[in-house]
Amino acid sequence: MASTDKPADPEYKSSSTPAPAGVDYFHFDVILRFLLFAASLVAVVVMVTGNQTEGFRPAKFRYSPAFVYFVAAFSVSGLYSIITILASLFVIKNPGLKTKYLLHFVLLDALILGIIASATGTAGGVAYVGLKGNNHVAWHKICNVYDKFCRHIGGSVAVALFGSIVTVLLIWLSAYSIHSRVPK
Amino acid sequence: MASTDKPADPEYKSSSTPAPAGVDYFHFDVILRFLLFAASLVAVVVMVTGNQTEGFRPAKFRYSPAFVYFVAAFSVSGLYSIITILASLFVIKNPGLKTKYLLHFVLLDALILGIIASATGTAGGVAYVGLKGNNHVAWHKICNVYDKFCRHIGGSVAVALFGSIVTVLLIWLSAYSIHSRVPK
Repeated sequence: MASTDKPADPEYKSSSTPAPAGVDYFHFDVILRFLLFAASLVAVVVMVTGNQTEGFRPAKFRYSPAFVYFVAAFSVSGLYSIITILASLFVIKNPGLKTKYLLHFVLLDALILGIIASATGTAGGVAYVGLKGNNHVAWHKICNVYDKFCRHIGGSVAVALFGSIVTVLLIWLSAYSIHSRVPK
Repeated sequence: MASTDKPADPEYKSSSTPAPAGVDYFHFDVILRFLLFAASLVAVVVMVTGNQTEGFRPAKFRYSPAFVYFVAAFSVSGLYSIITILASLFVIKNPGLKTKYLLHFVLLDALILGIIASATGTAGGVAYVGLKGNNHVAWHKICNVYDKFCRHIGGSVAVALFGSIVTVLLIWLSAYSIHSRVPK
């Protein structure tokens, strides 16, 4: 999609210079970061609004440390995606900084991927116990009682998984962009 | 550590060529990949050997889908680290392929990071319920009974966390190596 810009790129025609211009994927980068922001926001909001009370016994996300970690991790990734959207837009205006920013994006994206992938796993693991229970240790399932709560948890984890996949794509995109700038 | 090799690098002195040699971190890469292999192996072995029977009620890792996913994920990362150690050693012998392999390393490492970070989170989340229980949904803790089982699970998750951090460092190293090859 960004490759259609190539003939219009002023650096593209000066192929005699030793430094190749590289392919410009920053517009695609902004779109992916916006998807990460949307996924983080939806994951947090759906998780937080899942509270349900059945017969004076409430179910809340903050009763489980796993879900608290999940909300904290995706709050961080939501904030991070806003900052990097602004950074990405800044680089589109200042093309001289592209290579430097691409490296920083890979380094930070890898850190964020570690945080949100583990948070998705943590919440998913506990949610699965709530869905199926575990007869071997007598942990009974709770999703037959707290149906709305479990729907919210499940939806939130699914969106979080999408956000983790988007972060992997962001690392791939930045790494490929840096690689395209290395002389053959 | 690898930077002490720089004066001995034959490419280093030909600074007049348009393509810079970049910094050679492949020896450090092999060391990190070996650490990932060791961490994966230890995590799987410690998890699998944690079986404990108390009064005819056994506790086994395969009773929990979270721990099965954990063992599967770290088996994959152990196999992956063997393959990439061989690839990294191959590249040390064939320096012309360095940039290409560095890109592939970043792409695959990001995928493996997503898998093992989520597996660490999944096992850690379920292990925490086993350690502390959850009074809100009447999931009682089991680690007061299955002490050896829980020690194995806890040790395995700690080593897995170390493996995930090593994978983040691997991505950082490869990204920085590619970046060092881009002309200023």
